[in-house]
Amino acid sequence: MRRLAILAENAFSWQTAKTATGVIRYGNDLVVAVIDSTQAGKDVAQALQLSYGAGIPIVHDIYAALDYQPDALMIGIAPTRGELPEVWRGVLLAAIDAGLDIISGLHTFLSDDVELSSAAARRGVTLWDVRRPPDKKLVARYLPHRPGSHTILTVGSDCVAGKMTSALELNLAAQRHGINSGFLATGQTGIMISGNGLPADRIISDFLAGLVEELVLDFTNQYDWVFVEGQGALNHPGYSPVTLGLLHGSMPDAMIFSHRANATTLSSYENCPILPLKRLIEMNEAVVSWPNPQRQARVVGISLITAGMNDQEAQDVIKQVEDETGLPTTDTFRFGADMLIDALLTHFAA
Amino acid sequence: MRRLAILAENAFSWQTAKTATGVIRYGNDLVVAVIDSTQAGKDVAQALQLSYGAGIPIVHDIYAALDYQPDALMIGIAPTRGELPEVWRGVLLAAIDAGLDIISGLHTFLSDDVELSSAAARRGVTLWDVRRPPDKKLVARYLPHRPGSHTILTVGSDCVAGKMTSALELNLAAQRHGINSGFLATGQTGIMISGNGLPADRIISDFLAGLVEELVLDFTNQYDWVFVEGQGALNHPGYSPVTLGLLHGSMPDAMIFSHRANATTLSSYENCPILPLKRLIEMNEAVVSWPNPQRQARVVGISLITAGMNDQEAQDVIKQVEDETGLPTTDTFRFGADMLIDALLTHFAA
Repeated sequence: MRRLAILAENAFSWQTAKTATGVIRYGNDLVVAVIDSTQAGKDVAQALQLSYGAGIPIVHDIYAALDYQPDALMIGIAPTRGELPEVWRGVLLAAIDAGLDIISGLHTFLSDDVELSSAAARRGVTLWDVRRPPDKKLVARYLPHRPGSHTILTVGSDCVAGKMTSALELNLAAQRHGINSGFLATGQTGIMISGNGLPADRIISDFLAGLVEELVLDFTNQYDWVFVEGQGALNHPGYSPVTLGLLHGSMPDAMIFSHRANATTLSSYENCPILPLKRLIEMNEAVVSWPNPQRQARVVGISLITAGMNDQEAQDVIKQVEDETGLPTTDTFRFGADMLIDALLTHFAA
Repeated sequence: MRRLAILAENAFSWQTAKTATGVIRYGNDLVVAVIDSTQAGKDVAQALQLSYGAGIPIVHDIYAALDYQPDALMIGIAPTRGELPEVWRGVLLAAIDAGLDIISGLHTFLSDDVELSSAAARRGVTLWDVRRPPDKKLVARYLPHRPGSHTILTVGSDCVAGKMTSALELNLAAQRHGINSGFLATGQTGIMISGNGLPADRIISDFLAGLVEELVLDFTNQYDWVFVEGQGALNHPGYSPVTLGLLHGSMPDAMIFSHRANATTLSSYENCPILPLKRLIEMNEAVVSWPNPQRQARVVGISLITAGMNDQEAQDVIKQVEDETGLPTTDTFRFGADMLIDALLTHFAA
């Protein structure tokens, strides 16, 4: 177990630092400090106004973080385009100087940066670029999965709709039910949490479905249920190719749909209204059957993000979505994923 | 105008050497010889059993090709996964030694190969890796196109269904109609033909739609009609992400659908039946409206590949597809694209 400091300068919230919050909640490593000068003095639970992270200090800078003896510095936010903000260079160099490994999910690879990589080499520390894709050229072959295995993909209405969290909560709940299940990470945070997976958004378009397929076949040989972390959304004008590559690469047997409750437009795209959930669900179901109508998958349940609501408000919006869609609905983060596991068990038994 | 020799060893046919045949038919460069030892002695027209390429010799090897004083050697076939067959290394080194530039559309970049790039540097020739993507991180912003401009995307039922050829023939026909139109290449052959464009299948999934959008906005500022070369197919289990990135990145106003007449399964995927054309057309139309239902595009006409049929057989299958779909249908390669230009003019006037 590593001791991690997490860099989330000026951005430590569940909306803007999903890598940080995901690793704190689900990772195997011990988080010893979070760096965000705008919230220094609080602890993680206070800053997030959530029930986890009590006692993990938020500190002013890397030097303050070193007091908590971290082994590694993790970059805990994912800026658009995934570039390294130039102001962070000094922070990373200070961390390297102090003997910390660096863990990064940025699109810009730290190990390709001459200054950072030579500093790391001098100090004998590792730069782990989580988003570096496998150097492999593999076109999907549309192979069947191991009979008896079940692949469940999380899809959704937008980015930051809870696809990773749902997949993680579903996997934990399935394991509590005694099911031999695994979580297949497809994004930098999921990879940091689980220690393996595929940075789907970073893969060359031609090989995306092929590399996903290869890993899914590997997971379905090991596990009875495989929860594949979804990415983006079919209706997202920027990230839809990633979503489709995951759908056709993983060829799910069932899907869980994620949605930020009451969202009406795509985040950062005011000219893209979020369509009715029933329509979005139909889209995802249709897409699975495109290569061959005999291979079908249904959306079996819905997980909402209800952050910021009280329990009664959350239950009201859940009820409303259940009425609208006819599907079992919950907030897996707030209420757990047991009801969705029940829905999947019923679905696979039918 | 360059003098090109084209390498298509053991593969010079329109099915297996679409780069070679595309450049011969549509490119601005003069093709002086094609290398394919299995067909040496024929000319291009004889080998293809088509009406173009008479007088262009097919020769046994690179040394025979040098007799025709080429300036450059173009790799004219696109193997799956786009890797350099090791047996070609000697051919490329011989060409470099003879002072030829090399033009390659392979996924494996020649300029990253130490032996080839140092040989090229010594001899002062250029290795042009057409498929090297722009080093740019750009997420699609879903911006409107210049009002009055029209973007037409070619989509289709499979790879090698005629999407590039249709876009090229449509562009030529539009220009003959006096329309200020341009061809936007999205694949290695198209780029070799037009001298610019974007290697869509090689772009990182996150940035595919964004880079397509940037180039489409540039083209729609220059041209009244822009024909965007499509790639893959939505129903293709390997390449569908590329197709979707082109659909959402280009946000077409109209589409032309390409199909290999009488094809019943995807090429190389016997377990993927080609669905009825009406269903495939609906899919492509639906996808355009996913980010915002107000932005719609219809498939306005169909182009079939009828190679191998006589004119009567071709006309019969065209009639059959017209009856099936209710859309104007032709083989743009055999009969030209004028009727589809008429269909587009009518569509845009409505």
